Amino acid sequence: MQYNAELIAVGTELLLGNIANTDAQMLSEELSTLGINVYYHTVVGDNPQRLREALEIARKRANIIITTGGLGPTYDDLTKQTICETFGLPLEFHEDIWEDICAYFMKRMKREDIPEGNKQQAMLPVGCTVLDNPVGTAPGCAFEKDGVHVLMLPGPPYECRYLFEHRARAYLEKLTHDRIFSHELRIFGMGESHVEEKLHDIMVRSTNPTLAPYAKTGEVMLRATAKAHTKEEAEAMLAPLIAEVKETLGDVVYGEDVESLEEVVLPLLKERGLTLSFAESCTGGLLAKRLTDLPGASAVFRGGVVSYTNAVKANILGVPEDLLDRYGAVSENVAIAMAEGCRNICGSDLALSVTGVAGPDRDDRGHEVGTVYMALAAADGTICRLVDIKKGRSRGHIRHLAGHHAFDLIRRKLLGLPL
Amino acid sequence: MQYNAELIAVGTELLLGNIANTDAQMLSEELSTLGINVYYHTVVGDNPQRLREALEIARKRANIIITTGGLGPTYDDLTKQTICETFGLPLEFHEDIWEDICAYFMKRMKREDIPEGNKQQAMLPVGCTVLDNPVGTAPGCAFEKDGVHVLMLPGPPYECRYLFEHRARAYLEKLTHDRIFSHELRIFGMGESHVEEKLHDIMVRSTNPTLAPYAKTGEVMLRATAKAHTKEEAEAMLAPLIAEVKETLGDVVYGEDVESLEEVVLPLLKERGLTLSFAESCTGGLLAKRLTDLPGASAVFRGGVVSYTNAVKANILGVPEDLLDRYGAVSENVAIAMAEGCRNICGSDLALSVTGVAGPDRDDRGHEVGTVYMALAAADGTICRLVDIKKGRSRGHIRHLAGHHAFDLIRRKLLGLPL
Repeated sequence: MQYNAELIAVGTELLLGNIANTDAQMLSEELSTLGINVYYHTVVGDNPQRLREALEIARKRANIIITTGGLGPTYDDLTKQTICETFGLPLEFHEDIWEDICAYFMKRMKREDIPEGNKQQAMLPVGCTVLDNPVGTAPGCAFEKDGVHVLMLPGPPYECRYLFEHRARAYLEKLTHDRIFSHELRIFGMGESHVEEKLHDIMVRSTNPTLAPYAKTGEVMLRATAKAHTKEEAEAMLAPLIAEVKETLGDVVYGEDVESLEEVVLPLLKERGLTLSFAESCTGGLLAKRLTDLPGASAVFRGGVVSYTNAVKANILGVPEDLLDRYGAVSENVAIAMAEGCRNICGSDLALSVTGVAGPDRDDRGHEVGTVYMALAAADGTICRLVDIKKGRSRGHIRHLAGHHAFDLIRRKLLGLPL
Repeated sequence: MQYNAELIAVGTELLLGNIANTDAQMLSEELSTLGINVYYHTVVGDNPQRLREALEIARKRANIIITTGGLGPTYDDLTKQTICETFGLPLEFHEDIWEDICAYFMKRMKREDIPEGNKQQAMLPVGCTVLDNPVGTAPGCAFEKDGVHVLMLPGPPYECRYLFEHRARAYLEKLTHDRIFSHELRIFGMGESHVEEKLHDIMVRSTNPTLAPYAKTGEVMLRATAKAHTKEEAEAMLAPLIAEVKETLGDVVYGEDVESLEEVVLPLLKERGLTLSFAESCTGGLLAKRLTDLPGASAVFRGGVVSYTNAVKANILGVPEDLLDRYGAVSENVAIAMAEGCRNICGSDLALSVTGVAGPDRDDRGHEVGTVYMALAAADGTICRLVDIKKGRSRGHIRHLAGHHAFDLIRRKLLGLPL
């Protein structure tokens, strides 16, 4: 049985462009791992007539309908009522759900003050599977009628994702037999067209598992996907393909199933018992922020200096004034002095500095926007690289890419790869 | 004539959940400023049959259809062909567009090597308005047939937005007479329900202009919207409403038509000729990053220290060891010492420190996750605040909110508002 889904998002805020339909993106990605095709996304406003029409259309062309939104307590939350009218199902009051909703409100108010509107959140279609919601007040639900499975999920993205992972997924897994499993390879230092060129033959011959490239900001992600009955079968199919890709591309493949270069650098430092600090000029704290976004960063990160002015480079990092005068802040000499000074005052094993021109204007020495020097100081000496980010589209883009280059430099140093 | 639009996005990558449909969000927001209702969003894959069905449904329920995607040079780019079949319009070859496409490619290859597939990008419906595309190879187009206006735009978000702003908007402005103008008020320090409570009467009586609240992360945004024939009329309608809202809410309103607290703080510092530095522990560089995201930050920002360990707090910021031993890093005494030390070594007029527990674990003194101290050192002394971010959902959320509190503290200090 092939399952084809239509996702219907209910909410006028979507049609006003206040938010993007990220629920549909999340659900589409999840459904693809279950082998369920998604053929349509539809968005309608808080309008029962148009929702009704959308449901009538959907039930003819899909055998799974997942709605998001419209389960709240206000007068314009009409998803459940409209779906029940469309499918000819009565609603019934669930006392236990109402008690849960009351308990939630009674943390903040007396029982008699609980808004009446919330009672509609405890009304559910007769015979449905309740998808209880521990992270919000509106439970979702699922039922099958006339050959169509209907699942109703809350709109707020955090709740929608939670209920899908912890409730809806199990319901859908019972329907399908195939599972889809993927691994994601992350690549930095090779562009998408070059990656596709190198992998062309492999990609053409790989029908199961498949290999698909995706551009990310300044990186490439490769998704290897296998369809099988069990996870073990899928992993056995994926392993040789992944090995072949790594062999073909080499060390530009920096990780598997990670989100960023820093996610790889942190454990590399930790395993080696090494500490790190940053001296940042144009990246303005971004490197420190990215590393400290990760739980456990304190095991390796000492701290750093955001030396946005030459005075701070001199006074805190100890960069000699004459170097600054002679070569300017954006230079190899100053990058090296920043890294070595930082390593010294932070007492870290490694220290990385970044100094460059993020834009929108050139610096006072006429360096083009996107000219970035970075230096990595270690016990065995300091290396320095000039990175060309002149194709950067904006200040933010250039800073973001400089961050990638910085973490990649540390990765390569730690792994003994070509710098 | 009331115009009702349906947006149809074409692209299998949307149905696989690889990306969210941000084109629809952008277009919806733009169309609302033209007084055009959007009643439906639809997403279909690169499948001509399903696109045809979606178009047949859309032409019955909307009088403006805007498609995004499927205008590329590959075999699965079938938007134009399918639309022309649906509306019974022939396609014709535009020599001048083909010449533009060739010129673009000939920067990189010889004319005879240009892929044949690109020729389809120069085929357009007979009689259409060409929406030429200087930022990509696929031109868009617009036509009217059988009472329906159809606009085809490229899928890539940057091109889609560009073509809408510079080509499609003008086409649509000729259809509608009303214009919609908005201003956005930004609020920090008051929750959404409290804001709605205070503004309830104003909101109920405001039918044109209208006032609508939107939750943002840790902030509230209020959009005041007026519908009028000209910008001047609209501004005249909006001014008294905005003044009344500011009067009612007071100083929690931090800005108008800005994106963040730091966007307000930067000019406040600049006008006063004041410089700023940051001593960051738990925010790990985020404050410096947020400020330096803004062009022109170098006019006021000296730099800062990311003092992630106690050793760095002591060695660089000069925080006395006995304070750290006695009170721990997360304390008023240490926050004050960090701010004053930072002000001293960076040589700035103001210095702000943040030290707290971002999570996921408590600190070694048992402070709960979300306990954050921040101190602001100035020529006239140092103030310190304990901020409660215990409701923060995650490490990233807590750091983000700490950033808001920090910039708001600076704002209030500079404006002489209650701290």
